[in-house]
Amino acid sequence: MSSPRYACFRSVLKAGGPVRVAGAHNALGAVLAQQAGFQAVWSSSLEVSAARCLPDASILTMTEYLECAAHMQKALGIPVVADCDTGYGGNMNVAHMVREFEDAGITAVCMEDKLFPKMNSFVGDRQQLLSTEDFAAKIETAKSVQSSEDFFVIARTEALISGMSVEEALRRCHAYCAAGADAVLIHSKSRTNAQVLEFLAQWDGRRPVVIVPTTYPDWHIDEVVAAGVSVVIYANQGLRAVVASLRHTFEEIYRSGDTTSVEDSIADIGDVFELQRLSEWQKLDA
Amino acid sequence: MSSPRYACFRSVLKAGGPVRVAGAHNALGAVLAQQAGFQAVWSSSLEVSAARCLPDASILTMTEYLECAAHMQKALGIPVVADCDTGYGGNMNVAHMVREFEDAGITAVCMEDKLFPKMNSFVGDRQQLLSTEDFAAKIETAKSVQSSEDFFVIARTEALISGMSVEEALRRCHAYCAAGADAVLIHSKSRTNAQVLEFLAQWDGRRPVVIVPTTYPDWHIDEVVAAGVSVVIYANQGLRAVVASLRHTFEEIYRSGDTTSVEDSIADIGDVFELQRLSEWQKLDA
Amino acid sequence: MSSPRYACFRSVLKAGGPVRVAGAHNALGAVLAQQAGFQAVWSSSLEVSAARCLPDASILTMTEYLECAAHMQKALGIPVVADCDTGYGGNMNVAHMVREFEDAGITAVCMEDKLFPKMNSFVGDRQQLLSTEDFAAKIETAKSVQSSEDFFVIARTEALISGMSVEEALRRCHAYCAAGADAVLIHSKSRTNAQVLEFLAQWDGRRPVVIVPTTYPDWHIDEVVAAGVSVVIYANQGLRAVVASLRHTFEEIYRSGDTTSVEDSIADIGDVFELQRLSEWQKLDA
Amino acid sequence: MSSPRYACFRSVLKAGGPVRVAGAHNALGAVLAQQAGFQAVWSSSLEVSAARCLPDASILTMTEYLECAAHMQKALGIPVVADCDTGYGGNMNVAHMVREFEDAGITAVCMEDKLFPKMNSFVGDRQQLLSTEDFAAKIETAKSVQSSEDFFVIARTEALISGMSVEEALRRCHAYCAAGADAVLIHSKSRTNAQVLEFLAQWDGRRPVVIVPTTYPDWHIDEVVAAGVSVVIYANQGLRAVVASLRHTFEEIYRSGDTTSVEDSIADIGDVFELQRLSEWQKLDA
Repeated sequence: MSSPRYACFRSVLKAGGPVRVAGAHNALGAVLAQQAGFQAVWSSSLEVSAARCLPDASILTMTEYLECAAHMQKALGIPVVADCDTGYGGNMNVAHMVREFEDAGITAVCMEDKLFPKMNSFVGDRQQLLSTEDFAAKIETAKSVQSSEDFFVIARTEALISGMSVEEALRRCHAYCAAGADAVLIHSKSRTNAQVLEFLAQWDGRRPVVIVPTTYPDWHIDEVVAAGVSVVIYANQGLRAVVASLRHTFEEIYRSGDTTSVEDSIADIGDVFELQRLSEWQKLDA
Repeated sequence: MSSPRYACFRSVLKAGGPVRVAGAHNALGAVLAQQAGFQAVWSSSLEVSAARCLPDASILTMTEYLECAAHMQKALGIPVVADCDTGYGGNMNVAHMVREFEDAGITAVCMEDKLFPKMNSFVGDRQQLLSTEDFAAKIETAKSVQSSEDFFVIARTEALISGMSVEEALRRCHAYCAAGADAVLIHSKSRTNAQVLEFLAQWDGRRPVVIVPTTYPDWHIDEVVAAGVSVVIYANQGLRAVVASLRHTFEEIYRSGDTTSVEDSIADIGDVFELQRLSEWQKLDA
Repeated sequence: MSSPRYACFRSVLKAGGPVRVAGAHNALGAVLAQQAGFQAVWSSSLEVSAARCLPDASILTMTEYLECAAHMQKALGIPVVADCDTGYGGNMNVAHMVREFEDAGITAVCMEDKLFPKMNSFVGDRQQLLSTEDFAAKIETAKSVQSSEDFFVIARTEALISGMSVEEALRRCHAYCAAGADAVLIHSKSRTNAQVLEFLAQWDGRRPVVIVPTTYPDWHIDEVVAAGVSVVIYANQGLRAVVASLRHTFEEIYRSGDTTSVEDSIADIGDVFELQRLSEWQKLDA
Repeated sequence: MSSPRYACFRSVLKAGGPVRVAGAHNALGAVLAQQAGFQAVWSSSLEVSAARCLPDASILTMTEYLECAAHMQKALGIPVVADCDTGYGGNMNVAHMVREFEDAGITAVCMEDKLFPKMNSFVGDRQQLLSTEDFAAKIETAKSVQSSEDFFVIARTEALISGMSVEEALRRCHAYCAAGADAVLIHSKSRTNAQVLEFLAQWDGRRPVVIVPTTYPDWHIDEVVAAGVSVVIYANQGLRAVVASLRHTFEEIYRSGDTTSVEDSIADIGDVFELQRLSEWQKLDA
């Protein structure tokens, strides 16, 4: 198989310093995240499903999420971290998922301990979780079938999302690490980072911790790092910027009757050509 | 086959009034265009290829463009007009294209008289065109294989793009109408609309005319209509808004170290859920 | 949307006479089934997954099964009956499935009352079933989202496969009909058709019955019809013929060192061209 | 990127001995070829398009051919040699093709010097070829963008197919080798191997030679090797066996009214389960 044209996630993490990750739903957004300085890209299932105007509820299939992640990775020099929801079913689905994502050049995946079909974490209050044992079996399965030592599996617990305690979140994360997880992700949709801080205070550092500060937007990266977090995922701000921007731009063109008033706030065609790497491609025909 | 959940392009055109069309590259952008009032969506090959960070140069395949167009149409109540470049090859490819797009519920396609593989119209100065006869044969082929009477084929001439005269553009468009085209698209990348106006002054109205005012952004819709145009495609402003917005948002998050400063300019999660029609879907589980 | 180029399953069933259906995994097999006289084609999940050398265990996704079914339907004048396993998850997945299959021109689907992820019916002895109520809800969901009145939903019970009684199978099928199922499929892997005959003897004919005589190969079509069955699916004999034939042909070529000895038992290139409808396509370039 | 689970074509060629390659159109056929002893699998564009009941005439896209080749490779321990027709367009398409096939784990591709869109070599008499210079540029492009040193590009000349002389075929093959081709394929649809033998007699061995003995079926492997050939592709016998076998099986089931008479000539379900590697997969749930 060809040598990679991009860094693997494990090596990015080893390089030290906080790993900041931006959510995207296509190669264009992924490349803009890379250009802004991010160390990796999160192929967000919320973003990918929203780009299709479908709920983030296991409605799109692994095939479709994989295709998006692969398209992003092909365009990047930094790694994609693939949001793989529940692993798309049971242990066999997890095994298939790992093989397919690895074959597509993805070097890190994240699985969460919700039931299949899942519902987005920001919807409802008491989502049901898989038993610790069953999710640990999924982690074990994932690690047992990976081809490359570098492949990286993040175990995400939705314990806090589901109204469980910090202690339960810790208990689950310990079990997931014992099953082979390379990192844990502690997710919360509380309006503050208090529960996550409590988790971090009790975490013994056996594996790196990943967080997703969607609902506590003012947690500064320096403090995040000081609290013991290794990886921060800004999971959906890009999508939300796209919604606001397209809404404004389309409304303004329609209302004003021409595009004069939006020209100054949008990129020019030359910018687009650069993002398409047009001049590199044209050399092939020179 | 199921009854359509959306209007066909021919009926939108018949309804009267200017048909304003916005370019998009995914269902999310398409739905935002619909919400802003546009009558149809242009599944732009520039946008779709840019979303993959690949040049708009026949590198992506019909399979990939079709998938995007179909995803948009499934989410819309208004029709998609599919940008089908050259028809993806010769007559057989055109026939296959018409069948595949029609099967996917697309009610209007646009083909242009450039050679395959094509290059984006805003690149270079003297792109080579197919002979009038050969392109007319493609139009004839397209019309001969369509299943529904409503299917609509737009013939786009790149005569002005290629440095040819308005007379040549007229001559070509006449031939394309004789071959069965349902409308003609006259494209120009001049900094003014002068050549397009000259074309319109001499056009006898045998078929509707479509324009794409990318490089003459100040041509107001009322004047466009007064000049005899039936359909206006704002082909890539949405993409360019996305680039500007993502660039700013990602840079700002990375620079500032948290997302506080962007929260006010991005949509909130609830907006995203509405675009995903989450509450409609949740009723299925009630 | 375009008028269909093929019959819908409901109209085939209404036409009277036994509906004989052959399993296939690609358009070529489907067309050969049509040429042999079959009234419909079963896009078998066993066949489709076997063609990928993967188990029939919900490992391939809806995207992949749909693609196969759509490819078959495009090549046929008779309808595809799509084997949709469990509906690929919960109620939302079922709704999405119906929309996607209907959009792709499929006029009949079959869902079974096993849990997701499923395992092939011929594997193991005591597969767990979904509750009657939950599967009825899936049927209701499917019927509530279909666009066309003609769309046809077959409810398949795996009660006998799971070691339950004929009474339980009847009870389930009654509930599925009450939920809106257009037909029921009673599956058994017993070495005889005794249990199926017992089911049929007690069935009151409220909806057509479908059977799959894989393990009782000597049940003649006349007797099947006399027993009250409307639709017979020969689900996987085609696949098994392909395995035997390719195994023999490849071994013979490799052993003998040339292809002389197989030439008489394989189709000639002209046959292949006819199946590809080459001469029809060539007219487009005449 | 993960370590490969299969041998690359270059290493198979280096291992010495004749490399015998069987054509296939899906993973199942590919695995049966491997089990019969073949050293590689040809992802034949004739087979893949025939499986869709569409002509072998550049109607299916690179996306679709790539998908088939990738599915085969994932199931195999031996390499796929991908039949890439003309490279799907111009130099940019060739570059994209090489990147995509390499990313998908394919270690060898074959391109031919026909024009895009191509027509199958067994159709018609005087197919037009690309100029030697333009095809050499495609080979150069392919070699310049490959990531791995092991990636292998076969240049196929259709000179004999197009009614040109052996001298022209030699002249072209020399130019293609100078452009970087790793091997040449000399194709002929004559009823005898005379022209190919003439080519081989004059070939100086600068690169390995590949042949496709479809129309000279009695050329024994020992004599093929003695004549200087390194690789023999039995390109479509598998497909033709499938057609004959399915036609017979379906006709017999339909005619006889049950499946008794075919049971002895088809594989049993257990064989299918083995090809699906079911027991390996089941261990994941043990």
